[in-house]
Amino acid sequence: MITKEKPLFEQVSGSILSQIEKREYNVGFKLPSEEQYKNKYKVSRHTVREALRKLEGEGYIYKIQGKGAFLAKKKVSYNVSNKTQFSTSVLDTSLATSSRLLGITSIYADENSELREKLEINIKQKVWALEIIRFINETPFIYSTSYLPERRFKGLNKHINGKSFSLYKLLREEYSVSNITRTSSVFEVGIPAREDISALQISKSIPLMIVKSRAKDDMETMVEYCVSRFRGDMASLKVTF
Amino acid sequence: MITKEKPLFEQVSGSILSQIEKREYNVGFKLPSEEQYKNKYKVSRHTVREALRKLEGEGYIYKIQGKGAFLAKKKVSYNVSNKTQFSTSVLDTSLATSSRLLGITSIYADENSELREKLEINIKQKVWALEIIRFINETPFIYSTSYLPERRFKGLNKHINGKSFSLYKLLREEYSVSNITRTSSVFEVGIPAREDISALQISKSIPLMIVKSRAKDDMETMVEYCVSRFRGDMASLKVTF
Repeated sequence: MITKEKPLFEQVSGSILSQIEKREYNVGFKLPSEEQYKNKYKVSRHTVREALRKLEGEGYIYKIQGKGAFLAKKKVSYNVSNKTQFSTSVLDTSLATSSRLLGITSIYADENSELREKLEINIKQKVWALEIIRFINETPFIYSTSYLPERRFKGLNKHINGKSFSLYKLLREEYSVSNITRTSSVFEVGIPAREDISALQISKSIPLMIVKSRAKDDMETMVEYCVSRFRGDMASLKVTF
Repeated sequence: MITKEKPLFEQVSGSILSQIEKREYNVGFKLPSEEQYKNKYKVSRHTVREALRKLEGEGYIYKIQGKGAFLAKKKVSYNVSNKTQFSTSVLDTSLATSSRLLGITSIYADENSELREKLEINIKQKVWALEIIRFINETPFIYSTSYLPERRFKGLNKHINGKSFSLYKLLREEYSVSNITRTSSVFEVGIPAREDISALQISKSIPLMIVKSRAKDDMETMVEYCVSRFRGDMASLKVTF
């Protein structure tokens, strides 16, 4: 039945990709122009554009209006598992990780039925909302909001005495929460809101990978609901079954 | 330490969201105008825009240039697990699922070192590439390419005798592959290439959720590497740990 030839633009993008893989270009450096590729492959400019658009879609290159195409940074491989720790989730151990707390707010859960359901709490309860930026080599990588039930974590705001901190260490040491385990994650794509653009220092055109995770303690009580917004051009999230 | 008030635009977006959750609007129908929200909440037009942009980023609403904001379809909740079957991965059983094969091509793995590595094959081997569209209620939801080693699945193209088919049933019945199990999935965000726009019938502005999965048989041999491009405005992919 149907057997089809690979379209021309895919043959071109495949060839450019193999050059990228052979490290013939450097990160952040300009690729040859459309004109140069057109002459090299003896194809139309339209085909070159399609090929470059495919590579852009796959995150290998990015374009700057009027300047051309550049080799993108390699994506950051990040493990999503039942372990919640940020630093050990970054698979490349040569990358430096750090976290900064932007703020902590006390909110009423009744505004948000999703939150009540995820944390298994009732309408009268208050919830802490912690806004945290996670960095990879000092580049903002994740902007997340962690929601924790206030009744369980009384006075959490008073235990925080710096912008650089570890949430799970705090929960362990101050509230004796042992064995925090992620139970599920939901992956969605989003476009950045003003707050994301400012926290992640990205342009409007960069989509986000949004991961909503729940975590419980070893008593099977929900302790955290976390909404993490990853830079879509950097994140490569791996799940192993 | 830092305790901050919720910004005004978030209070507005929270209020609009609760109206959405109470089903005060209908899917595909127009929301009140910016002017109407401005008067209702007694805030600036800028704040209304920020609130609507936040809801758009979260996928609750979408905007049409010059027409206003509309209530978006509810996302399709899709289970990503070690089970590879499409129909049972769609969590809402009231939704109808179907698949259509666009084409099958035989390619050389030497073009693509990633493919060789994922399928654990050497440079001389050929690979089948099957392009498949998966539908939810007749709307294209996933555009995927499944790569399978040709040596293992000789004459695969001859066994396909219709556009509507089940890949895993075919592998089971014709090649006695039992217990196909997904071993890992990598989640990334992408922008659609021309082929994605045409297969998924979307506009350029809709980002994609790209999931790259590997599957093995019960002899621990890699049988499939699959790159699935989900409509980013529809996909909500759930992983349970």
